[in-house]
Amino acid sequence: MARFFKKREANRGQSPGALIFIGEQKVETVQCHLISYNNLDLKEIPLNPASIKMEVQQCGSEQITWLNVNGLHDIDIIRDIGHLFDIHPLVLEDILNTGQRPKLEEFDNFFFIVMKMVRFDKEKQMIVNEQLSMIVGGGFLLSFQERPGDVFEPVRERIRKHKGRIRNSGSDYLSYAMMDSVVDNYIYIVERLGEKIEDLEEEILAGPNSGVMEKINIFKRELNYLRKSIRPAREAIAQISRLDNDLIHEQSIPFFKDLTDLVTHVTEAIDTYQDLLTDQLNIYNSVVGNRLNDIMKVLTVFSAIFIPLTFIAGIYGTNFDYLPELHYKYSYFILWGVMLVIAGLLVMFFKRKGWF
Amino acid sequence: MARFFKKREANRGQSPGALIFIGEQKVETVQCHLISYNNLDLKEIPLNPASIKMEVQQCGSEQITWLNVNGLHDIDIIRDIGHLFDIHPLVLEDILNTGQRPKLEEFDNFFFIVMKMVRFDKEKQMIVNEQLSMIVGGGFLLSFQERPGDVFEPVRERIRKHKGRIRNSGSDYLSYAMMDSVVDNYIYIVERLGEKIEDLEEEILAGPNSGVMEKINIFKRELNYLRKSIRPAREAIAQISRLDNDLIHEQSIPFFKDLTDLVTHVTEAIDTYQDLLTDQLNIYNSVVGNRLNDIMKVLTVFSAIFIPLTFIAGIYGTNFDYLPELHYKYSYFILWGVMLVIAGLLVMFFKRKGWF
Amino acid sequence: MARFFKKREANRGQSPGALIFIGEQKVETVQCHLISYNNLDLKEIPLNPASIKMEVQQCGSEQITWLNVNGLHDIDIIRDIGHLFDIHPLVLEDILNTGQRPKLEEFDNFFFIVMKMVRFDKEKQMIVNEQLSMIVGGGFLLSFQERPGDVFEPVRERIRKHKGRIRNSGSDYLSYAMMDSVVDNYIYIVERLGEKIEDLEEEILAGPNSGVMEKINIFKRELNYLRKSIRPAREAIAQISRLDNDLIHEQSIPFFKDLTDLVTHVTEAIDTYQDLLTDQLNIYNSVVGNRLNDIMKVLTVFSAIFIPLTFIAGIYGTNFDYLPELHYKYSYFILWGVMLVIAGLLVMFFKRKGWF
Amino acid sequence: MARFFKKREANRGQSPGALIFIGEQKVETVQCHLISYNNLDLKEIPLNPASIKMEVQQCGSEQITWLNVNGLHDIDIIRDIGHLFDIHPLVLEDILNTGQRPKLEEFDNFFFIVMKMVRFDKEKQMIVNEQLSMIVGGGFLLSFQERPGDVFEPVRERIRKHKGRIRNSGSDYLSYAMMDSVVDNYIYIVERLGEKIEDLEEEILAGPNSGVMEKINIFKRELNYLRKSIRPAREAIAQISRLDNDLIHEQSIPFFKDLTDLVTHVTEAIDTYQDLLTDQLNIYNSVVGNRLNDIMKVLTVFSAIFIPLTFIAGIYGTNFDYLPELHYKYSYFILWGVMLVIAGLLVMFFKRKGWF
Amino acid sequence: MARFFKKREANRGQSPGALIFIGEQKVETVQCHLISYNNLDLKEIPLNPASIKMEVQQCGSEQITWLNVNGLHDIDIIRDIGHLFDIHPLVLEDILNTGQRPKLEEFDNFFFIVMKMVRFDKEKQMIVNEQLSMIVGGGFLLSFQERPGDVFEPVRERIRKHKGRIRNSGSDYLSYAMMDSVVDNYIYIVERLGEKIEDLEEEILAGPNSGVMEKINIFKRELNYLRKSIRPAREAIAQISRLDNDLIHEQSIPFFKDLTDLVTHVTEAIDTYQDLLTDQLNIYNSVVGNRLNDIMKVLTVFSAIFIPLTFIAGIYGTNFDYLPELHYKYSYFILWGVMLVIAGLLVMFFKRKGWF
Ligand SMILES: [Mg+2]
Ligand SMILES: [Mg+2]
Ligand SMILES: [Mg+2]
Ligand SMILES: [Mg+2]
Ligand SMILES: [Mg+2]
Ligand SMILES: [Mg+2]
Ligand SMILES: [Mg+2]
Ligand SMILES: [Mg+2]
Ligand SMILES: [Mg+2]
Ligand SMILES: [Mg+2]
Ligand SMILES: [Mg+2]
Ligand SMILES: [Mg+2]
Ligand SMILES: [Mg+2]
Ligand SMILES: [Mg+2]
Ligand SMILES: [Mg+2]
Ligand SMILES: [Mg+2]
Ligand SMILES: [Mg+2]
Ligand SMILES: [Mg+2]
Ligand SMILES: [Mg+2]
Ligand SMILES: [Mg+2]
Ligand SMILES: [Mg+2]
Ligand SMILES: [Mg+2]
Ligand SMILES: [Mg+2]
Ligand SMILES: [Mg+2]
Ligand SMILES: [Mg+2]
Ligand SMILES: [Mg+2]
Ligand SMILES: [Mg+2]
Ligand SMILES: [Mg+2]
Ligand SMILES: [Mg+2]
Ligand SMILES: [Mg+2]
Ligand SMILES: [Mg+2]
Repeated sequence: MARFFKKREANRGQSPGALIFIGEQKVETVQCHLISYNNLDLKEIPLNPASIKMEVQQCGSEQITWLNVNGLHDIDIIRDIGHLFDIHPLVLEDILNTGQRPKLEEFDNFFFIVMKMVRFDKEKQMIVNEQLSMIVGGGFLLSFQERPGDVFEPVRERIRKHKGRIRNSGSDYLSYAMMDSVVDNYIYIVERLGEKIEDLEEEILAGPNSGVMEKINIFKRELNYLRKSIRPAREAIAQISRLDNDLIHEQSIPFFKDLTDLVTHVTEAIDTYQDLLTDQLNIYNSVVGNRLNDIMKVLTVFSAIFIPLTFIAGIYGTNFDYLPELHYKYSYFILWGVMLVIAGLLVMFFKRKGWF
Repeated sequence: MARFFKKREANRGQSPGALIFIGEQKVETVQCHLISYNNLDLKEIPLNPASIKMEVQQCGSEQITWLNVNGLHDIDIIRDIGHLFDIHPLVLEDILNTGQRPKLEEFDNFFFIVMKMVRFDKEKQMIVNEQLSMIVGGGFLLSFQERPGDVFEPVRERIRKHKGRIRNSGSDYLSYAMMDSVVDNYIYIVERLGEKIEDLEEEILAGPNSGVMEKINIFKRELNYLRKSIRPAREAIAQISRLDNDLIHEQSIPFFKDLTDLVTHVTEAIDTYQDLLTDQLNIYNSVVGNRLNDIMKVLTVFSAIFIPLTFIAGIYGTNFDYLPELHYKYSYFILWGVMLVIAGLLVMFFKRKGWF
Repeated sequence: MARFFKKREANRGQSPGALIFIGEQKVETVQCHLISYNNLDLKEIPLNPASIKMEVQQCGSEQITWLNVNGLHDIDIIRDIGHLFDIHPLVLEDILNTGQRPKLEEFDNFFFIVMKMVRFDKEKQMIVNEQLSMIVGGGFLLSFQERPGDVFEPVRERIRKHKGRIRNSGSDYLSYAMMDSVVDNYIYIVERLGEKIEDLEEEILAGPNSGVMEKINIFKRELNYLRKSIRPAREAIAQISRLDNDLIHEQSIPFFKDLTDLVTHVTEAIDTYQDLLTDQLNIYNSVVGNRLNDIMKVLTVFSAIFIPLTFIAGIYGTNFDYLPELHYKYSYFILWGVMLVIAGLLVMFFKRKGWF
Repeated sequence: MARFFKKREANRGQSPGALIFIGEQKVETVQCHLISYNNLDLKEIPLNPASIKMEVQQCGSEQITWLNVNGLHDIDIIRDIGHLFDIHPLVLEDILNTGQRPKLEEFDNFFFIVMKMVRFDKEKQMIVNEQLSMIVGGGFLLSFQERPGDVFEPVRERIRKHKGRIRNSGSDYLSYAMMDSVVDNYIYIVERLGEKIEDLEEEILAGPNSGVMEKINIFKRELNYLRKSIRPAREAIAQISRLDNDLIHEQSIPFFKDLTDLVTHVTEAIDTYQDLLTDQLNIYNSVVGNRLNDIMKVLTVFSAIFIPLTFIAGIYGTNFDYLPELHYKYSYFILWGVMLVIAGLLVMFFKRKGWF
Repeated sequence: MARFFKKREANRGQSPGALIFIGEQKVETVQCHLISYNNLDLKEIPLNPASIKMEVQQCGSEQITWLNVNGLHDIDIIRDIGHLFDIHPLVLEDILNTGQRPKLEEFDNFFFIVMKMVRFDKEKQMIVNEQLSMIVGGGFLLSFQERPGDVFEPVRERIRKHKGRIRNSGSDYLSYAMMDSVVDNYIYIVERLGEKIEDLEEEILAGPNSGVMEKINIFKRELNYLRKSIRPAREAIAQISRLDNDLIHEQSIPFFKDLTDLVTHVTEAIDTYQDLLTDQLNIYNSVVGNRLNDIMKVLTVFSAIFIPLTFIAGIYGTNFDYLPELHYKYSYFILWGVMLVIAGLLVMFFKRKGWF
């Protein structure tokens, strides 16, 4: 089961820009949702895909139009939206390919950004990601998700309640607010994973047990998965704050810089936790090695002391007719004496070696 | 058998630009194939090497002429094509040297790109590569392969069926379409290998068995081989989108950028899988270490308990004439009692150490 | 318990620039302290948060006003100060977020710098950090700490006693003096940790003991924590000396360069100590491996010599009616002879293997 | 014996540019050889060192004069040549110091390049290198080697037979042809070593044996040595193709670029082989660990089954007067029954653990 | 004992530029030495610190004045020299701080360079370093050392004897000559350490012994120490050759480039030796693992063969009244036969496993 690299066999041999959905279908029917707002007005409607064109054209040109699409398996809808907003076919291809690497691309009339939303899937007991593609143009923002449910409810709430500066700002600020939500969620996920990793330390020093090792393994894999999902986004977000583009307003720059900072923080935390895990595995191996030494010392001390003594007893257990020592009066007591001396010498020898 | 570095002993001491075929001959006779097209017309013919010059000269100058050559062992053919299209001898030398590193080179009248096509060879049970050299000039594209069979059939099909933009574009777009097919195939190969690597994880935690280790070894080696074949191509493709050259049309740039993106994705996936394998080997070693500890605990517990008891039994198996305990009535039962106490103490000792 | 990555769940879904305190409250009530000085005058007063505005406005515009705030849980105070000095809301958000990564940010009217003060917490037996945020404007410096107690007393003393150039310099030099104190403290902490790490070496070669391993583990973790706290500060400080900004006077540049140098020195020392610890763990593992070999040699030599001899004795301990050797006169002595020869040969064998 | 870093104690405290031979003398007497050629004429003579000046001055200024010197111990010859061609004393010092790192240096009237020629020394069973220093000026090329015998015979042959473009080109092309021969030889050496490394794989999986490990060690060391000899040359050669210098003709640039490519290929192959060896050592260690587990399982199974049984037999081998079981009729058969049950249970226990 | 990071507790809380000696006092009284020269004249006198000012002012302005100071504990002398030559207080602070990182700093009237001189201390059996600070101005050079004794005697000798170009050059060339001596000494030290490291290889393959491991440990530590002392100097020296500064004459540039080259060579050699040591430790660990396998094979073979046989003998050593086999005539011989068969089978089993 390939989790780190999405199957895109369907794409082989296709002409570039061919619209082919790559991923698993995660929603029954495509759901569209439109918010159109400016400082004064607000319109919010769930859309029938068939009426997208009509509804969008009714939005005033002074307004910010945010069209969100959940579900990517219906290629016709994607193609229609593409025509409506004049989107390059390669962009549409990338939207449909959910194994896309996070990135930023600049076009004449919009910029295009791909990120991964991550969440912990309780059923599979692993982190899963969902691709978020955003097209940010002058006065509009198109967002595409693989399934319903996202981290943008607080953003919608701020739009509805006219909170903060969002209603007074452009589509660039809206895209910032959305990416900020995504990154906040990265932080939340890394935090929770990190806490578990830091707690592992005690368990490791408590001694070898295969549960610890399995946890280290799982955490390493999940961190790898997170890094793969998150790290390329840093570069993409940093690029936005350096875009020399009318779409990005002067007063939005500090926000994008702040976001760059945040995502840098997350990726550094991931690196730190990976280093911690590597250290923990090394320590764990040393603990196992130490423990083996302890075990072998016990075995060796027992064996080395009793094996010679047993040999001596064996000698006097033989049934030779002529075995003179058997008939001396004090032989038995001498035997014990000799054995105690031998044992004592061996104990001293092992003590001196520090094996006790 | 050198797979990572092709034998080129024949080349030692040769004058630069000397045309010497380096590699193994993989086809009986050289096969040539010509497609010549523009928006309106299309001509496609398998060529007799002898008639290359004539056929090529008959192609209209308004047309894109794609000449493909399968098989590199006939140096005369290569030299003739070189003269016909005015190709620098160093380029011809590189085409013939199938151990060439992927790269881009820019000349006055064309650019030259070398890539590796990879496929899984079922017989050898390993990934093999085949060198693809392309010379992209104004209105013509020359491609050279080591053997028949390639990943370009879908491209030819699109040309034939006038699908997508290929018939309306130049030789640069044709080269893009071909490289895109090659990269799509990289993705396919890495995907399949990756799936197997991700599946390995369970097997590893199930316990040490030398099959796992051999698989890790094989996967590492195949990833190394893929990386060696693919990574330099990233740089080469990225360079194309930055070429300041009339051969690359403005509207082709996004396609080359998209391709750069794709090949970056592949090389990152290879790196990720190599990290996974390294982690897996470490985990495997820890599993082996744990298992050894378990084995030694069993051995030590058994030995440490029974060796002293056997010694005591040995003592009373001696045949001394004067061994008073032998004659007491309850000696035998006292012996059992003492032995049980000793065993009990040792069991407690090992329990406290956590060895059960 | 997440130490490497601060919980900021409260921040999820908040509008950017929302003022939310992230961290644990470490002081009962917020404490403010104001020093206002120039070459001639000096005013120093502990402030009631309520009277900050009034007191600050009374400070002459020719003076450097340093307002220090201990405790961040009272958001109103932070917001009021923000309004008073015209601070961007993202900066206030960062001040309140004590999990902030060290960084420099430049604004029109000030620059903003975040650093971590570190100290060894004797109770927790670990290094803890405290966030220091500084806003350096023309004629004023605002500093924010999580709790009372800092490393700036010597700086205040120099201001009070008119020592050095501080009273003749601007807010940039004041910020330098403060950061220099912070960095001096980094050096002190790394020094103390480094001394312990260097002392570990002897203990390691003395032989395996789990205390050593635990120490290596702790030192690695603490160094990781230090690096995470300190390294980003290097970049931030280096940026200051390159700022093309009226706030930084020409004659302050050498001081900031010197400081960059110092913090580079600290981070290199951290790297060196991490390398030392990695080497030490490797050596430790080798020592453990060597020790295991020694133990097993002892076990093997004892077992291999006495087990065959015991077997022979066992043979002659059997009670067969017809066992001819038992009745020969010299059997017993021959037995000893044979045993000595066998033992001697085995000893020679092991000697030749170098196991003694 | 320092092979990785040449002794240059003699140079300590010397004034810079002091001419001191560092290395071992590898030839009895210094041998000089002069070729002077242009498109039309060719003169080739072995030279008496004493007549260098005279012979060189007789060469026409339209000709390319290639003076090769084998043997560096006679400092006077080097100094005389230096004066004759106006060479900077630091260059002469570097020529004499055979522990020189490969590099390029540009001067007003020439460029100076140092490379290492490598060959496998059958006697020492290791790769050895020989320093090649070249001074390439307008119309002349001086080459200095440590001993007779080199890889340039094919170059001389091409000059003599007027093959390729060499007779029509300048000293830059001659230097290229010579470096190309050196690099061809790198390829040959790396190829042969690489073949052996790739063959090692099977041997490793066949099981632990110290010969494998010694080979890994030797190959690692030889690769290190090659890397040290070759890698700096890549940078040096790449620099040539970027030199903005009249000495390098426009039409030579592609040749130097091709060479850069080739030497990059070699250094990457070295890196790949080093990675392979590291992987192989890791696999080898895992094989050894697996094998140890197997061994210990056998020991433990044998010991854990027979030690308790031997103990029971020992009990009934004691000579107590009152040992009731000895006198029951079926005791002996019950004993066997009990022993078989115990053995059976243990076998089941070990089977369940998967130790068979 | 902190060797890798010098104690500078005294500096905490001091005002920047405060002159505080950090290090251990290594000389009783400060020694000064003045050489003043030009092409024609030379004056050389040991100086009383009290008369520095007078003597320096008597030196002609056409002369190069080299003032060397041994011993840094007398802060007044350093301060006086600082005033005399107009040196920035931060530079004086750095001179006194002997834990300074090697670096270059450019000021208006001079450049300042810090390096470490290294030597092997026979008493402590470790490499120690001594800080060398140099201030190079127009016509003067100030050098500061921690103790008497240095590597500059050959430089002084060249000045006295008018050897080489030193008497005809400026203070820049003098500083070059001094740094060249320091670097020559690095080479000498690395050479000697490297020789020992290369010799270690044989010892390692000879088999595990704790002396080898201790040596690897020591060499690693000493190389770390050297790297820490030397590596930053590379950057500093390379910077000099790029300085756009009247203090550096055109004709000195090749010398500084040559020196950069040399110090690059040294740092690369250090890296190579560190790689060698890491490889050696890995090989050593594999040797230890192999050896353990050998030991365990011997133990297992002996145990697995004799333990079952001893058990059988034990059976017939029991004293049961009814034990039929005891009374058969050929029992004893059958016993031997059975035992030999068992032993034979086990030997075959182990042979097939390849344990012999
Ligand atoms: Mg495709
Ligand atoms: Mg595509
Ligand atoms: Mg795409
Ligand atoms: Mg969703
Ligand atoms: Mg990726
Ligand atoms: Mg990645
Ligand atoms: Mg060649
Ligand atoms: Mg060539
Ligand atoms: Mg080539
Ligand atoms: Mg083919
Ligand atoms: Mg490669
Ligand atoms: Mg590569
Ligand atoms: Mg937020
Ligand atoms: Mg935020
Ligand atoms: Mg922020
Ligand atoms: Mg505080
Ligand atoms: Mg951080
Ligand atoms: Mg970090
Ligand atoms: Mg010298
Ligand atoms: Mg020199
Ligand atoms: Mg030199
Ligand atoms: Mg030679
Ligand atoms: Mg080197
Ligand atoms: Mg190197
Ligand atoms: Mg200070
Ligand atoms: Mg300071
Ligand atoms: Mg300083
Ligand atoms: Mg000194
Ligand atoms: Mg340092
Ligand atoms: Mg360092
Ligand atoms: Mg390791």
